[in-house]
Amino acid sequence: MANDRTDALVVGVDFGTLSGRAVVVRVRDGAELGTAVHAYTHGVVDRSLPGSDRPLPPDWALQVPRDYVDVLRTAVPQAITAAGVDPADVIGIGTDFTACTMVAVTADGTPLCELPEFADNPHAYVKLWRHHAAQPQADRITALASARGEKWLARYGGLISSEWEFAKGLQLLEEAPDVYAATVHWVEAADWIVWQLTGTYVRNACTAGYKGILQDGAYPSADFLRELNPDFAGFVADKLDHPIGRLGDRAGDLTALAAYWTGLPAGIAVAVGNVDAHVTAPAAQAVAPGRLVAIMGTSTCHVVNGATLREVPGMCGVVDGGIVPGLWGYEAGQSGVGDIFAWFVENQVPPEYHDRARDLGVSLHELLTDLASRQRVGEHGLLALDWHSGNRSVLVDHELSGLVLGQTLATRPEDIYRALLEATAFGTRMIIEAFTEAGVPVTELVVAGGLLRNEFLMQLYADVTNLPLSTIASAQGPALGSAMHAAVAAGAHADIRAAAAAMGAVDTDAYRPIPAHVAVYDQLFMEYADLHDHFGRGGDGVMHRLRALRRAAVAR
Amino acid sequence: MANDRTDALVVGVDFGTLSGRAVVVRVRDGAELGTAVHAYTHGVVDRSLPGSDRPLPPDWALQVPRDYVDVLRTAVPQAITAAGVDPADVIGIGTDFTACTMVAVTADGTPLCELPEFADNPHAYVKLWRHHAAQPQADRITALASARGEKWLARYGGLISSEWEFAKGLQLLEEAPDVYAATVHWVEAADWIVWQLTGTYVRNACTAGYKGILQDGAYPSADFLRELNPDFAGFVADKLDHPIGRLGDRAGDLTALAAYWTGLPAGIAVAVGNVDAHVTAPAAQAVAPGRLVAIMGTSTCHVVNGATLREVPGMCGVVDGGIVPGLWGYEAGQSGVGDIFAWFVENQVPPEYHDRARDLGVSLHELLTDLASRQRVGEHGLLALDWHSGNRSVLVDHELSGLVLGQTLATRPEDIYRALLEATAFGTRMIIEAFTEAGVPVTELVVAGGLLRNEFLMQLYADVTNLPLSTIASAQGPALGSAMHAAVAAGAHADIRAAAAAMGAVDTDAYRPIPAHVAVYDQLFMEYADLHDHFGRGGDGVMHRLRALRRAAVAR
Repeated sequence: MANDRTDALVVGVDFGTLSGRAVVVRVRDGAELGTAVHAYTHGVVDRSLPGSDRPLPPDWALQVPRDYVDVLRTAVPQAITAAGVDPADVIGIGTDFTACTMVAVTADGTPLCELPEFADNPHAYVKLWRHHAAQPQADRITALASARGEKWLARYGGLISSEWEFAKGLQLLEEAPDVYAATVHWVEAADWIVWQLTGTYVRNACTAGYKGILQDGAYPSADFLRELNPDFAGFVADKLDHPIGRLGDRAGDLTALAAYWTGLPAGIAVAVGNVDAHVTAPAAQAVAPGRLVAIMGTSTCHVVNGATLREVPGMCGVVDGGIVPGLWGYEAGQSGVGDIFAWFVENQVPPEYHDRARDLGVSLHELLTDLASRQRVGEHGLLALDWHSGNRSVLVDHELSGLVLGQTLATRPEDIYRALLEATAFGTRMIIEAFTEAGVPVTELVVAGGLLRNEFLMQLYADVTNLPLSTIASAQGPALGSAMHAAVAAGAHADIRAAAAAMGAVDTDAYRPIPAHVAVYDQLFMEYADLHDHFGRGGDGVMHRLRALRRAAVAR
Repeated sequence: MANDRTDALVVGVDFGTLSGRAVVVRVRDGAELGTAVHAYTHGVVDRSLPGSDRPLPPDWALQVPRDYVDVLRTAVPQAITAAGVDPADVIGIGTDFTACTMVAVTADGTPLCELPEFADNPHAYVKLWRHHAAQPQADRITALASARGEKWLARYGGLISSEWEFAKGLQLLEEAPDVYAATVHWVEAADWIVWQLTGTYVRNACTAGYKGILQDGAYPSADFLRELNPDFAGFVADKLDHPIGRLGDRAGDLTALAAYWTGLPAGIAVAVGNVDAHVTAPAAQAVAPGRLVAIMGTSTCHVVNGATLREVPGMCGVVDGGIVPGLWGYEAGQSGVGDIFAWFVENQVPPEYHDRARDLGVSLHELLTDLASRQRVGEHGLLALDWHSGNRSVLVDHELSGLVLGQTLATRPEDIYRALLEATAFGTRMIIEAFTEAGVPVTELVVAGGLLRNEFLMQLYADVTNLPLSTIASAQGPALGSAMHAAVAAGAHADIRAAAAAMGAVDTDAYRPIPAHVAVYDQLFMEYADLHDHFGRGGDGVMHRLRALRRAAVAR
């Protein structure tokens, strides 16, 4: 079919934490013809509801669903305009979303926060992925699953996150039973946006698996749920269960209303919903086993396909067809990466460096990277732990914290900056080794995301992991990946592998490990691993105790 | 006698690392009537000799002896002028010096660097206390003493420092045998300056004990020295051994030449030489057992008297009459204190804080202290190790390095600053506990030195150590202490205890521990102690290995 319509176009829309980005892509070769970004009007709602002064509790993070629709109404037509193309040539639209981001809706998909009776109830709003107030519920879910020997627990590295569907759902039940009762569907935002486009609710296989504990066709049992809370027994049957759409399948046709919003032709294909990290894999042509995609930004998400099912301690999850149909999709993550570098630059760099960067016309990141890059491996004498935001994989412990060791009176800012860059690379290697040791081979590192622009950092990752490192060609990997899924949903490519081959692009082996660096980093990694295990695996629980002292101090 | 001459005066001269300070003091009540400072013309010679371009090796630190005489010629008469007194009323002069600072001299006390044949030989210059290039020799001395079971080793906490007389002497022999051969006396600068004042060489009991390994009336044996190096066998007999003067004794009378230099009357009493930290104890009236004097500046020196001899692991040394005759004087130290705070302020504070400090008209230290002081104990969630300059007591390991643990993305500069302040207090508590556990009681902390101006820091030390904290009244404790020794040497007070009572002054119990703080600091100190032992006592030798990697990196 693609041969028939060589100039056919698709639109991909990437819904991030603060904004949505649309890109117009040519089906034949993946050429990105135009793009536009729309920032959410309400951003992340973590202080008080719009129009209210009442402060939200700590760890809350909400969003307003109309902000998502605004992306369809503004960014999509703007991208078409920027591309200078005829919207009639667009044959499909695909989306990806942050996850797990949950919307409580009525039978017709109306978010409860849009009903007058719930407009001032925080629980009726979208709970963003980084809403962490359901930690007590998550802890109970993990503990009960462990006690009962639930076999699905190992599919999630042994821990259920506070970010996911069940923890957030149980929090809703226990803290706002009226909102819970009014919730007809407990929907991933990834699926809610597709519902807006098609008028039909289709639950995507990716989030259902990674965030919804759907394994081997089954959810946690009613018996399990009842033991958590008797009123929670019907959660799956009443709120969650719904027909599953495979990734790249056609969820439905673009409705007249959505066509009006977007300026696209009614009736074109709308792809099943998906997740930002996962759609990036085909955009980087990483659909075969062994290619670990690291989407490196404020945090890093890792996805890799495997031919077989393995239980990897500390991974986020493994889902059958979670990245591409037919393979087991594995996910892991580092909670803080670019966030840590940004924190350092904001909080620990003296005026002299600000002045030098300004004089040179470079950013502080560029200046510090340049200074750090002039050192030999090991020269700064420092070692850091990259746990300023906790540790997602492989320790799954958000009570951990950062560490820098080795300072002398001669230690300079660029030394610590480099040690922090290195720490995140060691963290990635720790994840790769966990996969490898569990029987999920990793033979190549494929980097997407904003940090790939830092060439020194990329070489450092190649050296630390001793893997060839490829970089995605697109600057907007998730939106391109969504466009590829749209092309498959529209039938323009046979499957996501074919779409990846035609539309994806990667700079293969852009960085190769330098043996002299690898040798020293091997030694430093062993030191990192010792610290990692000492402070992260029970040798010294000081980080937890300091958190407790901190809470007690604040409570006094 | 003091009653006969109620307006009798004494002069104390404190020879520091960069300058010398003279103070004119009234014998009767310790009133400080005038003071003057003279900076050494050549400061610390650590790059190249004066008039030379040839770089000195790393870790070298020399001085020029004429700079010391210049202090006598300028600061002393200026202090008399500033005091507006008649020099005829001065009845004695006392001095204190950095230690161990060594001068190689001829039979008449001429420094070898003043002889034309040695003027361009670095080994002929004064080796300042912080000349650390004799570390290999120090290591050999410690190892051999340990292997031979030399009983004096325990008097130094088990380790002989590279700063001391034997290590520096052995380096001189092995690296400059011609200078060694020409050295008739290997003299502490503390005694050399007294020699200049009196024309007589008297070796003081303090440095002979702490730095010269004179214990129970004996030095290390010729047999021991021969085993170090056959040519070193005669070191004690040929270069070092000399009649000892007790602290506060009269070393001799002021010569006509020295009277000409200083403007003081010829023939007045000159006290036996002494050390800056040790003379400060009587200036703070801390001459009784149990009162630990902490002289807190860039580093901290601790001295405390004990009624009995104990072996304290990790102390710098214990000397009979080392502080005051009749008691055992114990010494310990922290290599980095104010130095660490200064390093942080210079290297890790962003422009916003500089601007705020400027706007408020305060120093960065004051701003950070103010912000830190608003927190509750434990609120920042951090813990640090204060080893940026290594650890003098109780680990005696200069290959150790700093650590900060517990950072999150919310950690601010004042949090880390406070954690560093606390870390030095924990380091002091570690020393106090070593004394206490070894049977040397510590019942009160008496602080002298520049850091006592920081009231928040003083309260913190009281809280962390759970000891009442007194502060010395004088802003120039060492010079006052030297003046007190001059008064004793002149017979104006019966002994140093009487002088301390009459002339010293202390703000007793200026800070008392706050029980609620003590309780939390007790918990934090236990965490500190765990980290201290883990990284400092063999749990994880990572700091040493990082140093080795660093050296290897620089050598590549």
